[in-house]
This record gives sequence, C-alpha cells and structure tokens, in this order.
Amino acid sequence: MVPRYARPEMTAIWEPEAKYRIWFEIEAHATQKLGELGVVPESGPKALWDWWATDPKIDVDAIDEKERILKHDVIAFLDWVAEQVGPEARFMHQGMTSSDVLDTTLAVQLSRAADILLADLDDLLAAIKRRAEEHKYTPTIGRSHGIHAEPVTFGLKLAQAYAEFDRCKKRLVAARDEIATCAISGAVGTFANIDPQVEEYVAEQLGLSVEPVSTQVIPRDRHAMFFSVLAVIASSIERLAVEVRHLQRTEVLEAEEYFSPGQKGSSAMPHKRNPILTENLTGQARMIRAYALPALENVALWHERDISHSSVERFIGPDATITLDFALARMTGVIDKLLVYPERMMKNLDKMGGLVHSQRVLLALTQAGITRDNAYRLVQRNAMKVWESDGQMSLLELLKADEEVTAALSNEELEEKFNLDYHFKHVDTIFDRVFG
Amino acid sequence: MVPRYARPEMTAIWEPEAKYRIWFEIEAHATQKLGELGVVPESGPKALWDWWATDPKIDVDAIDEKERILKHDVIAFLDWVAEQVGPEARFMHQGMTSSDVLDTTLAVQLSRAADILLADLDDLLAAIKRRAEEHKYTPTIGRSHGIHAEPVTFGLKLAQAYAEFDRCKKRLVAARDEIATCAISGAVGTFANIDPQVEEYVAEQLGLSVEPVSTQVIPRDRHAMFFSVLAVIASSIERLAVEVRHLQRTEVLEAEEYFSPGQKGSSAMPHKRNPILTENLTGQARMIRAYALPALENVALWHERDISHSSVERFIGPDATITLDFALARMTGVIDKLLVYPERMMKNLDKMGGLVHSQRVLLALTQAGITRDNAYRLVQRNAMKVWESDGQMSLLELLKADEEVTAALSNEELEEKFNLDYHFKHVDTIFDRVFG
Amino acid sequence: MVPRYARPEMTAIWEPEAKYRIWFEIEAHATQKLGELGVVPESGPKALWDWWATDPKIDVDAIDEKERILKHDVIAFLDWVAEQVGPEARFMHQGMTSSDVLDTTLAVQLSRAADILLADLDDLLAAIKRRAEEHKYTPTIGRSHGIHAEPVTFGLKLAQAYAEFDRCKKRLVAARDEIATCAISGAVGTFANIDPQVEEYVAEQLGLSVEPVSTQVIPRDRHAMFFSVLAVIASSIERLAVEVRHLQRTEVLEAEEYFSPGQKGSSAMPHKRNPILTENLTGQARMIRAYALPALENVALWHERDISHSSVERFIGPDATITLDFALARMTGVIDKLLVYPERMMKNLDKMGGLVHSQRVLLALTQAGITRDNAYRLVQRNAMKVWESDGQMSLLELLKADEEVTAALSNEELEEKFNLDYHFKHVDTIFDRVFG
Amino acid sequence: MVPRYARPEMTAIWEPEAKYRIWFEIEAHATQKLGELGVVPESGPKALWDWWATDPKIDVDAIDEKERILKHDVIAFLDWVAEQVGPEARFMHQGMTSSDVLDTTLAVQLSRAADILLADLDDLLAAIKRRAEEHKYTPTIGRSHGIHAEPVTFGLKLAQAYAEFDRCKKRLVAARDEIATCAISGAVGTFANIDPQVEEYVAEQLGLSVEPVSTQVIPRDRHAMFFSVLAVIASSIERLAVEVRHLQRTEVLEAEEYFSPGQKGSSAMPHKRNPILTENLTGQARMIRAYALPALENVALWHERDISHSSVERFIGPDATITLDFALARMTGVIDKLLVYPERMMKNLDKMGGLVHSQRVLLALTQAGITRDNAYRLVQRNAMKVWESDGQMSLLELLKADEEVTAALSNEELEEKFNLDYHFKHVDTIFDRVFG
Repeated sequence: MVPRYARPEMTAIWEPEAKYRIWFEIEAHATQKLGELGVVPESGPKALWDWWATDPKIDVDAIDEKERILKHDVIAFLDWVAEQVGPEARFMHQGMTSSDVLDTTLAVQLSRAADILLADLDDLLAAIKRRAEEHKYTPTIGRSHGIHAEPVTFGLKLAQAYAEFDRCKKRLVAARDEIATCAISGAVGTFANIDPQVEEYVAEQLGLSVEPVSTQVIPRDRHAMFFSVLAVIASSIERLAVEVRHLQRTEVLEAEEYFSPGQKGSSAMPHKRNPILTENLTGQARMIRAYALPALENVALWHERDISHSSVERFIGPDATITLDFALARMTGVIDKLLVYPERMMKNLDKMGGLVHSQRVLLALTQAGITRDNAYRLVQRNAMKVWESDGQMSLLELLKADEEVTAALSNEELEEKFNLDYHFKHVDTIFDRVFG
Repeated sequence: MVPRYARPEMTAIWEPEAKYRIWFEIEAHATQKLGELGVVPESGPKALWDWWATDPKIDVDAIDEKERILKHDVIAFLDWVAEQVGPEARFMHQGMTSSDVLDTTLAVQLSRAADILLADLDDLLAAIKRRAEEHKYTPTIGRSHGIHAEPVTFGLKLAQAYAEFDRCKKRLVAARDEIATCAISGAVGTFANIDPQVEEYVAEQLGLSVEPVSTQVIPRDRHAMFFSVLAVIASSIERLAVEVRHLQRTEVLEAEEYFSPGQKGSSAMPHKRNPILTENLTGQARMIRAYALPALENVALWHERDISHSSVERFIGPDATITLDFALARMTGVIDKLLVYPERMMKNLDKMGGLVHSQRVLLALTQAGITRDNAYRLVQRNAMKVWESDGQMSLLELLKADEEVTAALSNEELEEKFNLDYHFKHVDTIFDRVFG
Repeated sequence: MVPRYARPEMTAIWEPEAKYRIWFEIEAHATQKLGELGVVPESGPKALWDWWATDPKIDVDAIDEKERILKHDVIAFLDWVAEQVGPEARFMHQGMTSSDVLDTTLAVQLSRAADILLADLDDLLAAIKRRAEEHKYTPTIGRSHGIHAEPVTFGLKLAQAYAEFDRCKKRLVAARDEIATCAISGAVGTFANIDPQVEEYVAEQLGLSVEPVSTQVIPRDRHAMFFSVLAVIASSIERLAVEVRHLQRTEVLEAEEYFSPGQKGSSAMPHKRNPILTENLTGQARMIRAYALPALENVALWHERDISHSSVERFIGPDATITLDFALARMTGVIDKLLVYPERMMKNLDKMGGLVHSQRVLLALTQAGITRDNAYRLVQRNAMKVWESDGQMSLLELLKADEEVTAALSNEELEEKFNLDYHFKHVDTIFDRVFG
Repeated sequence: MVPRYARPEMTAIWEPEAKYRIWFEIEAHATQKLGELGVVPESGPKALWDWWATDPKIDVDAIDEKERILKHDVIAFLDWVAEQVGPEARFMHQGMTSSDVLDTTLAVQLSRAADILLADLDDLLAAIKRRAEEHKYTPTIGRSHGIHAEPVTFGLKLAQAYAEFDRCKKRLVAARDEIATCAISGAVGTFANIDPQVEEYVAEQLGLSVEPVSTQVIPRDRHAMFFSVLAVIASSIERLAVEVRHLQRTEVLEAEEYFSPGQKGSSAMPHKRNPILTENLTGQARMIRAYALPALENVALWHERDISHSSVERFIGPDATITLDFALARMTGVIDKLLVYPERMMKNLDKMGGLVHSQRVLLALTQAGITRDNAYRLVQRNAMKVWESDGQMSLLELLKADEEVTAALSNEELEEKFNLDYHFKHVDTIFDRVFG
C-alpha cells in the first residue's frame, strides 16, 4: 500500500482494529449459537455481548505484544479478550479453528471492499454517462491503428467506456457473491467438534452465505477469481487512461486533464500540461493486474491446507483493493473534469483533406456497378494524392476531376458522400443499447 | 499448441478451414439481410447460398497464396470466394469491415471451445462424484501444513474438488456468455454504412448476442475475462493434481495414478511408479495461467482499435483452449482410474499414536471445567511424548496415566474421544450441500 | 508456435529430428568415454559412430510409434537405435538416466537458439546504427508525457534504442552462458553408476560447461533466468515498436513503416497506412513476456526433481525462442526500411510557437539575476498565451514585448535562446558513448 | 510493504528522509561541478555544503505540505532547501530536470538495496555451507517425482542449494551493476543546458557509472532486469522452502524448522509442528515474482518518457526489496537452525526393501551380458513383488532366489550392489566443484 494512492474508507477495512472487531463478532455470534444449542452455558455469549455493549477500545498493541510471545495471532486475541471479559470467555472458540475466524474475516473484509468498489464504479459510470450525453453528437475522428478512419462522436467513445465499466460492475457483483462465504467447520472442515448450525447462524448474522465444503480453509479459487476480476477492471481503467493520454498529446490535444491554477507542470518547461493522472493510472493498473498472479498460485494449497496463501493475502488484500479504489476515484475525477475541445476535434477531423470519407465513395462506386477491385483502385489513386499532399489537396475535388469516377457518380452524389451527419444516424440506437 | 497435449475436436475449431467456414457464414448471413433490406439485390445472397449448398471444399492454400500477395486476409478470402461464386459475390461485405468478420468469428470459436470445455467439466464432475460416493466414508487423515491434523474421509476430499469444479463451471458459463457477441458495425462501429439490423440478424443466426457498442472491434475486456476464467480453472486442476502427487509419494502412497502394464516408469529404476500425469498437469496449469496475462494487456487498445491483440490471440486462442481441454480430459482419466488404497490410509492415520485425537481431548478438558490454557498444557505435555516416540507411544495410554487429566475425565470418557466415527457424523450434511 | 511468426532456422532446432540427433551425439560421446575408461568395450562406441558415419536418416515416426507403446521417449529412442546398430548398442546409456540426455539436449537447443538470437541482435544493432548515423542531426521534437518538450535528433532516439539492445545482447550472452551446461550424473546426480569424467568429456565435445551439481536434472533457476532475459528483450522490442506506432499516427506522421506497392491497408479505407508490423510486435512482446512466468514457477521442483517443468518447456522452449527470433528480424526490417520524414519532424517541432525553447529562457532569466520563482512566472505568463493561441502566437515576440523580461535580457539575447543548434552540441558526445 | 515482513535497515532506504538526503547530495554535487565549470558562482555550492555540514534535520512534513500545494515534489523540495540555505540556493538545479534527481536517486536506492541483499545472500550461503559440511555424508533417500530413487546425502541437497544461491548472487551483482547509473542530462537527455561533465562528476561522487544515453529518464530495461533477477532469487527461495516443507511432512519428518519452546503450533492441535516459516516464504516468493511483471511493462515508455513507471516503482521499489531481504534472512534462520534427523532419514531410506538399489542390479546384469531389455524385465519382476509387499519383502533375497538372475550374478556380486557407500564415492568431487 502506498499512502498517496490510498483513501481512508478503504484503508480502514484493513486496519488491525477493524480486523479484530470482525474477529470478535464471529466469535461472539458463534458462542451465541453454541449457547442456544446448549453446548456452552448461556452466560458465555452474554458476557461477551455485555462487554461489547460497552463499546470497548481494542488495544491493538497489547494483542500484538501477546502475539510476539505466543507466535499465534488468534490465541493472542482470545487471551486478550479473556482478560477483558473474565472467565466466561473460556466458552469462546469451542470446536473452532483459527482459520474459521481468519477466513470468514477475510470474506467480510473483501465483501466490504467490494461494496466500496461497486460504489466507486457507480460514481465512475455516472460521470461517464453525464459526459457521454453532453458530447453525444460532438464529432471527432475515429482512429484505428492510430490512423484516421471515419468520424465518430466523443459521446460514442464514452458510451463504449460506459458499457465496459458496466460489464466490470456485473463481474464484480458476481465476484463479491463468490467471496462472501462463511466457514465455521473446525480443524479439517468436518464439523467434528462444532455443529453446522453454528456456521449457518454466523453466516446469516454477517450477511454471508455458507461455504458448502471447507477444509479448515475456504477454498482459494474464490479469491483467485476475485482478484482476477480486479485485474480485468484495472485493465479497463488502463484503456480509458490511455485514451485520455492520446487525446492530450500535443499534436492531438482534443481533451486534457483538468489543470488546476496552482499546478506546475514541470520544473523546466512551464508551458507543459502533462496527462500525469492518467499516466499514473496506467501504472496502477499494472500493479493491480500483477496482484492477480499470486492469487492464482494460491489455489493449489497442499492437502486440507497450507498457509502459503497467508503472506500473499497480507499484501494483495489491502494493496489491490486500496489501489483500485483510488484508481476508480481518480478516473472518475479525470472524466468528470475532463477539458474537452470540440473545435480541435473538428479541426483534426478535417485535416486529412476528406480522406476519411473514402469508404463511402468506395461503396457508392461499387453500388454504381463498378467491380470492387476497380472501385478500390479508383479511390486509392485519388486518395494517395491527398495523402502525399499532407491534407492540402481535397479528395472531393480530385474525385470530381477523375473521369472514371464521374462516369459513375455525379458531383451531387459525390458531395453527399462527404456529409458528416451520415455517420451519426445510429448514434441514438447505440446510446439506447448502452444507457437504455 | 503442443500436439501431444491436443485433442482433435478442440483443435479442429482452430484450423484454417473451420475459420473460413465461419467467415463465409457471417458474410452470407449479412448479405442475406442486406438483400432483405433492399441494399443489395436478392441475387447476391442467393448466389452465395447456392454455392454453399454444393458443400464446397475450402482451398486453404489458394487463399493463403492470395494473402501473401495482398497482405490482407479477409480481402484474400473474399477474392477467392468471388472466383468460386462469380460476379454476384461483389455484394458480399458491403459496409462491413474486416474486424466485423474476424471478431465475430473469434466469438464463435471461443463459444464452441467453451462448449467443449463445459462438456469436459461435466465429465470431470461425473468422475469426481462417482469416486466421492465410492469413498464417502473411507477414513483418511486430514493434513494441514503437510502435518496430520484430524480424520476426514477420502470422499470429502473429492467433494471439495467437486464443489470447486462446479464453481469453475458456473464461471465458464458466465464467461462464455460474455464472449459470445456479434459485431457487424463497420469501420469504427457507427453503422455508418450498414444497418444495425444486419448485426442483429447475423447474431441471431449464429446464436450470439449483439455487441451493444463496438469500435471496429469487440472490446477486449470480454476476452480478458474469458482467459482469466480459464486461468482459474487451470489453478483448480493444479490443486487436485498436487493432491494426487502428494498421495502418491513413497511415504504416503494412499493413492496412485493408474499404471498400465506396458508402461516403464524409468529407464533406470524399474520399480518406480511416478505420478507423471499429474506432474504434467501441474505444468500445463502454469501455461494456461500465463496465457491470461497477455489477454489482460490486450484490453487497452489505442482509440477505436489497434491490432496488437491479434498476434496474442493467434497464440492464446488455440493454446489456452486446446491445452485446457486436454488437461481436463487427462484429469478426468486420472480421477476415473485412480488407484485408491484405503488400508494404507488407515495405516497412516494410525501411525501418530492417536495424536490426531488431541483436539477432542482438549475440548473435553475445557468442558470439564479446566481453563483453556491449562487444558492446552495438559494435552501438550502428553502429546509431546507421543511425538518424540515417533508414534510408538499411545496418547490414550499416556492420558490415562496422567493424574491431572484423569481428575477431569474418566477412562471411558477418554476412550470415547478416540472413536473415529465421531468425525464423520456430518459427512452426509456436507455431501448434501455439495451434490444436493 | 504460430507458423506465420516462425522462421525456418530457429524452428529447425525444435523439430524432432534435430532433437534425436543431439540425443544420439550425447549417447555416443558418453559411450566413447565409457570405452576409454574401460567400462564398456571399445566396440560399443565404434559401432555407434560407424553407423552415424553413414549419415543415417532418423525415422521419427518409428520412434514415436515405439514411444506410444513404451510410454517413455528415451527408451523408445534407444530401442530404435539398437535396431539400427545391432547388439553393440547395448553399451549405450550405461549408468545414465533419461534426464542426462533430455536436459543436456535442452541446453544444446537453448544455446543454439541463443546463438541465432544473438545474430538477430547484431542485425538489429547494425540497422539501428546505420539509421542513427543517417539521422544523427535530423531535428525532431523530444516529447515527455506525449507533450512537446525540447528538441532532440532522430539519431538520438535511435542511439537510445542501440544502447538498449546492446544491453540486451550482453544479458543474452550471460544467459546463454548460464544455460549451456551438461549433466551426465545419473539417477539422482551422485555419479553412482557413471564416472564424472564422462560428463566432462561430453560437455567438452558439445561446447558446454559442466553442471557443478545436478539432481537428476539441471536446476531450473538457469532456465528461469534465460526466459526472463528473453522477456526483457521483448519489452525493449515493445518500446521501439511503440515509438514507431506513435510516430506514424496521423497527427504526427514523422515516420512510417515501409509500405509495399501491392499492400492494401484496409478493405474499406484505401488511404490508410497502418503500423501493423509494430502493432504486431507489441502483441508478440506480450507473449514472450508471459512465457517467463511458468519458467519462474518451474524452479521449485520437488526434491531431486519432478517432471512438471517438462510440459512447460515443450511450450516455451520453441514458442519463446521462435517468436523472439521472428520479432527481432521483423524489427530489423522495420528499422532498416523505415520511411523517415525530416520535413514533417521540423514542421511539428515548430508548431508550438517556440514554446519548446522556454526552458532556455527560464535559465537565462535566472542567470540574469531574477529569482527562480519570478523567472518561472515571467516565462509562464507568456507561454500560456502561446499555448492558448494553439501555436499561432510566437513566444519570442511575446517575450520581446514583455518589459519585465526585456529589463533582464536584450532582444539579441532572447533570439539566441531560440537557436536549435544549441541543443545538439553534445550529440557527438552521446554518439561516442553509445557507438564508441 | 507489510510491516511484519520488513527489516529496519532495508526499510530505511525507502523512507522519505533517506530519499531527500540523496536528493540533496545530487543537487549539491551538481552545483559543485557547475561552480567549478564557472556556470554558477562558487558561493552557490559553498552555501549548500555549509548548510549540510550542520547536519540539518530534513523536515519531511514541511516538504510534503509544499508538495500538496505545488503538486510537484522536486520543486517543493528545492523551495524548502532554499528557505533553509538562503538566496545562494537559486544556483541549484541549473539546467537539470526533475528526473535527473529522481532517477539517479532510485539508482542509489536500488544499489544500496542490492548491497543489503548481497550481504543477505552471503549469510544464507554461509549457513547452507555450514550445514552442508555437517551433513556431507548423512545418507538420505533421493526422490524423483516424490518417489524413492537412489541414495544421496543431505549435504548434497544443501550443496545444490548453495550452488543455486551462488548463481543468484552472481546475477544480482550483474543486476546491481546495471542499475547503478547516473543521469544528469536535462529535459530530454541532450545536455542542452548542462555540461556532461556534471553528470560524470555526480556519478563519480555517488559511486555510479554514467548513463550513456538517457531521455529525461534512465531507460527502464535496466529496472526490468533488476526486478526479474529478484524474481529468480525468490523462485530459488521457494525451491528450498518447498524442500523443507516436504521434509517436515508427518510421513517423512527428516527435518523440521526450529520450534521455540513458547510457540503454539495450533489453537486446536497442540502436537502439531507446522513448517510455517517455509510456507510463509513460499507465499513471499509468489509476491516477489509478481513484482517483476509491472517492471517489464514499464519498459515501453512513450517517446522520451511518460510517467507511468513512477506509480509502479513506488510499490515495487520498496515492496520487492524489503520482502526479499526479509525472505533471505528468514531462510538463513531456517537453514541455520534446521532440526535434522539422520536416523529418520536412514529409516526412510531402508523402508522400500532395497528397491532403491535396483538400478545397480540392472547395470550389473547388462554388464554380465544380458540384453538391456531382458535385464530390465528381470529386475522389474522382482521389484514389483517388493513394491506390492509395501517394503516387507527384500529385493536382495528375491534376486538371490531368481534363477535367471543368479545365472548371471553370484550372491556376493548381488550383495555388493546393495552397499550404500557405493553411491557416495563422488560426493567429494561435487563438494569440490561447489565449495572448491
């Protein structure tokens, strides 16, 4: 976790105190049910909840100090709670194993993290939608291979981003669902010393579903899937970030990240406005992608479990969710405040002397009865002249002067092929599909 | 693709002829709809389908030869088809762009590949289920950290694998759904030269859904998600493969890959039966995981598209699906024919002098009123003697001889704690959850 | 391996016949030394070499057929050789294990592959150097963050690429050195049944060094390092490819991939010249990078060896080397024939109204005694006007009209700051460092 | 960075104060040389060094506060220094760009990190060597595929680890060399506003070499190589960790991680001694490997630079080096204090009824004139009986009773084949190669 790429709400999920509070709730709920089942006296859970009702401070340092001696985190925690609660605390953790607590806690943390990320996605989607509607019919050149192709609208670019992040949201909803399971099944998952009803009860209290079969641990394919989905979301962030970076290039300059008055672009070149936010997001996307790998390697634990996944999760649990939260919020800010330059878009669109309309001419020639190959040749020979003139010559004028072309198409027909509106007649259809 | 790790049905999807057949179908369906819309004469699609009805052979070499000259695969194909069909073929591809064909084809190929993989998963699930029921109550030691923990059954191990691959199936169904989209939207996705109805028609004919917004290409977050799901499945294969490898170790030997009579284990050590199939699967899992990475990097294409994804997909499209198909089938074979040794399982379970029952004793002591810490100390001091005797001493006998213990628990109570059945009372519950 | 991204010389290394020829040489050299040591009769090696001297064809199909029955590749091969050579062949493979042959063969294959890659790098370096010298003083704008910064020369861009690939070459020389080891040490690497002198002899004959300690297998950290170096080289290819792609963008167009007359850029837009070679290289770089991952996971083999590395290497051995060979050659072609447009470079350089010289003005103001902060403010206020005019206003003229500026610098001094040559005075120094 | 996996010396390198101290030294050395060259008055560097000589505290909070306003870290730092030093500070940073400072600082940090890691490797090598010599002739069974193969010694296992980490050290020395370069070359690397002599001087003062050609930034292939080498080292750590984990398995138990008296293995199973340190190392290895990926993606910066690498390096710079430092130290501790059980090793070695000697018998039969295939058959049929008896039958006795065998080999000859010392006659040779 890099502090400058972290926001407090997400960070709080991963702080020791938050973790210990979840631990307590799991233990207390479990003891509650054990009491109802008559396994422990009802005085056990009562003592726990009574103490909890006092809103006690969790003394993280004291627990850590115990862990240093005992070399076992859950035992250290239980010892500390026992000191606070008194002898009734001995009914905690009956028949449970540490992983019951640890894995269910991770499920709670990742679910909460997913909730924040889903809210982040909603914010991003809202920002994209607003700007998409604002620029629904703002013409701009569509580019394939970085080369001018045919006109699109800036709104369409954003509609694509919207659809992509909307898919990301659906994936995250599914991944959250997968990760939100509770396991209270004992040392090797057989419920040998604890009734499955305890698991069901704790799951219900925490808003989790029951893990159908655990083996001391919740199986790590769930986590692998979760972090893989974060990696896909990060890649979609990168796509949009790269788009902004391209648009802000000196030669293109169709859009810019918002530039605050106090900001200095460079220590040496005061005129520079660099797309540093989206460059930064590109790097963050690389990190979030990388975190999926060890999650995938974590799946193949030995037999009923080994603990190799644990050190990995201490890194990627916080790092992937905190960084993605930051990245989504930053991207929302970038889109929300993006400076968009429609005039420059039009200027760029026009600069190729009308070459972007060549596809329409080609089609018209074919429809006028010329073979595909011949039509291609006719358009190509004029297009090449425009190209070599660096956009100074006009494709329309050249075509009007080409007798083979005019034998097939009248001047009026040719002119109609250079009308920009032609390209936007289905924008509404696409918007309906996306924002419908 | 490595031929020895490939099966013909999956490989066929990726052969040039299969690809060209899909290309033709897309072009012909699109021309069909263009005819219905009156954009091209009905003679166009008729000529195409008439030719297709003759079940023509696709001359891959001839098309390849054209591509070498034209340096464009789709044009080469269209030229070749035009040679076969005659002048009416000029109505093909009107208003379309190459990517309309290429990307929709990839969608068809990946959907078909997913169908095979789903059938593979069904086979694997069936094999696991059969063996799980066979060994529902076969006792074996549960191990955490590679160390004996408490008893489980071999059926439970397989139930966990079943639940895991069942989740994999659900993920693949979702990923197949995501990948199965059709884009016929023209040069930059605006439908400038082709009616969206064509896309809808082709999608319907091919069993795909419509891509809501494309930009010459189908967005690659869909593919990133697809290959990430394959990576998760591969990791689950690795988990089960590693389990088998562990079970086959000389010192453990609770199960073995089937050993065919003609097979030589080693050129030098004829007695060796090596778990080479599951070791091999471990390596294949590494490959399938690796293929997800470039798929994730493919997402951030430039502007409306660049073609950097294409070379990646020429590798990972076939390699990931063919290898995973092979791996799933191999794993099914391994499970189906796995030699299971219940006697050895019981022998291993017993070898630790009853230490695996220490958890039960600990719990019983606590319930008998001893503090958690004291109970722990009592069990530990006897357990350590057993441990140091390498399983020659019996925990039960030692406990019976420990006065602090017997002050809390009678001999009968102690003996009851060493009863194996105690651990299996919820096996049925778990099986219900998993196989329902 | 994708055939269209493969060249015959590299592919040949990985074909079965090449592999079997290396197998034979290892076996024959080993038998030769065993004969010299008196372990086997001299008639053994003689029979082998006599047969070899007849330049026999390797019947790959026959060996494969044997492998299908025996399920062991080396035994199948030895059987086939024995059929050809006769009873003296029984002295082959004495005291050896299959991995002695397989791992040493892989060492030979990877060394040969490295030799081709080193030659590829030499070709690429030569092409870059030639173009660098051609454009040593061709001015072009340097860009950071995609934004115009200060002038550089196109030769400098290439000098950087040269230095980078020169480092890549050094890394590959070291990696080749690491990978080129010979292990003939028997079943678990103890030389129990074979004298270490045999290993030394075979190593010498094959141009390899001796593996100091093997454990049936050559340790896989060597291979992990090798494929990691290929991944770094691929990333450097990507960097240069991305540079070309940027330069070929419509709005930049300072350079273009060579466009052959017969080539059609797009089925729909005949004017388009797309940087498809470098986009293609970008995708290939992603693949080659991905292949390093399973190589890294291969390191942690179990105990003296498991065979999980083998399936991985069947993929990445050929795929990584063949693809990188192709990519290096393609990149060499791109650079060799790159169309460079110095006029356009100058036009782009000038288009920002002289803003690129602002750093020099800033420095001059500071040196004239103005505080850094004030100098920054003076330059910034004029620079912003130029910026907002989209390069229509001239920074030089604005500065001359700014009294606070002219109080510190004369018109002549200001004009001197806009002289392009100023930036190139150390180009020769840099070229000396790089091409020395 | 996860605090529990961090050691103070390495962490200190990455703390803000350490970074700012390096920044100052770079600026001051550069100003020193600028003074010598007459570019700035000698009073400039003097003022800087005079202030530095007072051993001033770096006020990190004050600099951070400035950065929040200025949104530029280097300018914030220079402002703060200027406040401390007074007007003479304006001569700092003349002709330099922020990246000159940032990239050279990263070079210093990574070099220092590499120095710590090299010392860590020395410690690890020393520990391995000591234990290797201690167990040079401790017999243990060699295993391939997890199956008993032939005898080795425990010292040989460690000799292999020594050789592997010795290679790691050589790689890190080379990677450190690559990363330790200094760039003071101005806005786009042309030295337009600063003499190359400044770069040479600063490099010399900081113990770095000169970057031959930079482009505002030091090229990131150097860093990609550096982090790739860390990934290889991590993989070697994983290999040794996995070995220990295997050896500590209940059924094997040939070695154990040191178990401190106060340590509780599990909250539920007091007898358990889990290899948690090496499991933990396995997870850490996954993380360090993952960090190499974004470093590889960082190579392809746009044009002369973009800043996407920066956020990546804020993560992986500290995280990879701190975690690897911790992992190496932890591994050293594990090896140093590893509990080794030679008796158990011998017991395991013997348990297969002598099957591990079958290779020797096979060889002897061949040398006695029996064809390879027949010898294989003879050994195999007896070996299978032993195998099926679970090691209760003795291969030696069975062979003595097999007439086809005794026709070729006398009882004495057979007995000699079961002598353990036979396998260790070249241990000294291997030790000489490795430790020589």
